[in-house]
Amino acid sequence: MRVKCYLLGKVMNFRARQQRFQHILEQQGLNYFAVTHMPNVRYLCGFTGSAGVLAFARDQSRSWKLALFTDGRYAQQAREQAVGAKVAIARGPALIAAAEWMCGSSRKPAIVGFEAEHMSVASSRGLTRAVAKIRLKPTSSLVENLRMIKDADEVARIRSAVTLASKVFDAVLADIKPGVSENRIAAEIEYLSRRMGAEGMSFETLVAGGLRSALPHGVASSNPIPTTGFVILDFGVILAGYCSDMTRTVHMGQPDEASRKMYAAVLKAQLAGIEAVTVGVKTEEVDCAARKVLRKSGLGRYFTHSTGHGVGLEIHEPPGLRMAPAGRKRPKVPAKNSSQLLEAGMVITIEPGVYIPRVGGVRIEDMVLVTERGCEVLTPTKKELLVI
Amino acid sequence: MRVKCYLLGKVMNFRARQQRFQHILEQQGLNYFAVTHMPNVRYLCGFTGSAGVLAFARDQSRSWKLALFTDGRYAQQAREQAVGAKVAIARGPALIAAAEWMCGSSRKPAIVGFEAEHMSVASSRGLTRAVAKIRLKPTSSLVENLRMIKDADEVARIRSAVTLASKVFDAVLADIKPGVSENRIAAEIEYLSRRMGAEGMSFETLVAGGLRSALPHGVASSNPIPTTGFVILDFGVILAGYCSDMTRTVHMGQPDEASRKMYAAVLKAQLAGIEAVTVGVKTEEVDCAARKVLRKSGLGRYFTHSTGHGVGLEIHEPPGLRMAPAGRKRPKVPAKNSSQLLEAGMVITIEPGVYIPRVGGVRIEDMVLVTERGCEVLTPTKKELLVI
Repeated sequence: MRVKCYLLGKVMNFRARQQRFQHILEQQGLNYFAVTHMPNVRYLCGFTGSAGVLAFARDQSRSWKLALFTDGRYAQQAREQAVGAKVAIARGPALIAAAEWMCGSSRKPAIVGFEAEHMSVASSRGLTRAVAKIRLKPTSSLVENLRMIKDADEVARIRSAVTLASKVFDAVLADIKPGVSENRIAAEIEYLSRRMGAEGMSFETLVAGGLRSALPHGVASSNPIPTTGFVILDFGVILAGYCSDMTRTVHMGQPDEASRKMYAAVLKAQLAGIEAVTVGVKTEEVDCAARKVLRKSGLGRYFTHSTGHGVGLEIHEPPGLRMAPAGRKRPKVPAKNSSQLLEAGMVITIEPGVYIPRVGGVRIEDMVLVTERGCEVLTPTKKELLVI
Repeated sequence: MRVKCYLLGKVMNFRARQQRFQHILEQQGLNYFAVTHMPNVRYLCGFTGSAGVLAFARDQSRSWKLALFTDGRYAQQAREQAVGAKVAIARGPALIAAAEWMCGSSRKPAIVGFEAEHMSVASSRGLTRAVAKIRLKPTSSLVENLRMIKDADEVARIRSAVTLASKVFDAVLADIKPGVSENRIAAEIEYLSRRMGAEGMSFETLVAGGLRSALPHGVASSNPIPTTGFVILDFGVILAGYCSDMTRTVHMGQPDEASRKMYAAVLKAQLAGIEAVTVGVKTEEVDCAARKVLRKSGLGRYFTHSTGHGVGLEIHEPPGLRMAPAGRKRPKVPAKNSSQLLEAGMVITIEPGVYIPRVGGVRIEDMVLVTERGCEVLTPTKKELLVI
């Protein structure tokens, strides 16, 4: 089960990614770019530290140079990991050192592209103040758009993470008993994950039993598992940098008719969502397919979140599987990616849920890989209602 | 050991914090403010969800109104938790809903203060585009400055978190043996923490043995603990929302003379740092006190990070204990908070370290509470070199 991260790290084709990204920069007319979002830095050069800036600069001979700016804590690690980029240890803020490097070679003011979702207003203002020659140009999701399509190495890592998490789920079932605290179950999930080789969890482990299952984002609490009612378990592991994400809902004691129907409706919606996934379909159509089932069951208003999201180096990545904006009126802020087309190599979650306040909730979540002929469900765990 | 988070949540005096913050807004001449940084939202109203905006608006009668905007996932939780603020569930982005609420009551363009370190350029641009009447005014660390001084409830929670982590350290010592992987030790630390009542870890657990101890930020790997050499353990727990942070370095097998000297120098530096802490002292003086000891031992150039940082709802908070900018030349970007004065009620780490590439490293870290007469070391764990 354990994956040799270091070896896998060497397998990733960072230079090909850099070339694809440089091509995008050329299309955007950008000769300088500062990558500040750490998962994007990792994707493009392999550096896994928590702070740093990857700078792209195109010189007068039209060839690209890359430099990774980080701080003293990461000197050794950056030199070991960074592929295709020289490493510079900045004394002050790495972003300013990167900007000075990019602007240094330019006589005219340098137009530097940056990631507008990942640079704070304060950083942007500080940069403009510190580096006179810089002209900042906001861009949106340039690296994220590349990252949406996973290459074979990435799919292999994601598959390993998903498989590991499924084994954790099977193993933790033995611990789910009335009276055991949600925190204790979360502890077991996290311990099993680590013991099976995970580097960490991809988000805060959610364990929500009884009335708390009606909280769509119920992190584990000190509450005990009840003798009757639903328990939602939603967790993910990180393996060789890549995240998994799965949710299963079990029932303590024999469920009544209403609970059985509720579970069946969510499962039907989840299967309808999966059924809708294939190359060329709009993400909003997948959301719609799942939502329609719950509406028909009279549970539509209790499905209060989107149907899914991309997963990779981050637990939430594009594309989002959201509803199309309602009505004819053009919204002031278009829903992000609501009409993104699915492409082969995308890895997404399908996770409809129903949450009835003061009653309880159900969510079922798998990860799927979009393929030419539909999709491959990566999560191997069964989905029939499990009664404990 | 287990703390009843819900009850403690009720103890916190959110209304007093809101009043202090409103007073600051009035001093800044701001009638509208959007708090977007989630630890700040939690500090001011008690909401612990992962997404939301706390909006402050002062009406024509000069009285303040507060509203918390979040999404459907947190409807129930927000209503249970938010103190002194009405709760609104936004259909689109919470930030835009909050801005519309603030600007709605104003006939003129509304000047809305925001947290420049915590709003992306993309959010700021989106907001200006979506809400015609808004004029955004960047501010820096207004809530963080309040948060620097911990009240009695906060100190109690921090103390509990620190005590819990120390017990975890004592318990995990039994697992540190040659051949056991760093990941396994991290797994034990995290499991023990959870079992003792922690809600989670305050950062990625660092376990770095042998040559890897020379990595100041060496997250646990699959490498085995060596038969000889230093092992750095750096971890923290979260309890009732508050973080702890501690580092100890143990030695596998009998250390040679050079290793003993290295450890002794770091310990001396750490004690000198603690000795320097008291009300009215500049943070850079504390850094200087620790750094001076290492310079005198000829190890100064291997101390590549700052001496410490504030801890509270976040693992890294102001004040930073950094070096004063070197030389007479005014730096383009002043080092953040290098001349912040210590005040009673601040909680900071003191954590000098020495990292010699291809040899190994040592770091020793305690949390201390600044008091009128000096400081109280919160971390009870011994600091003499522990040989395993």
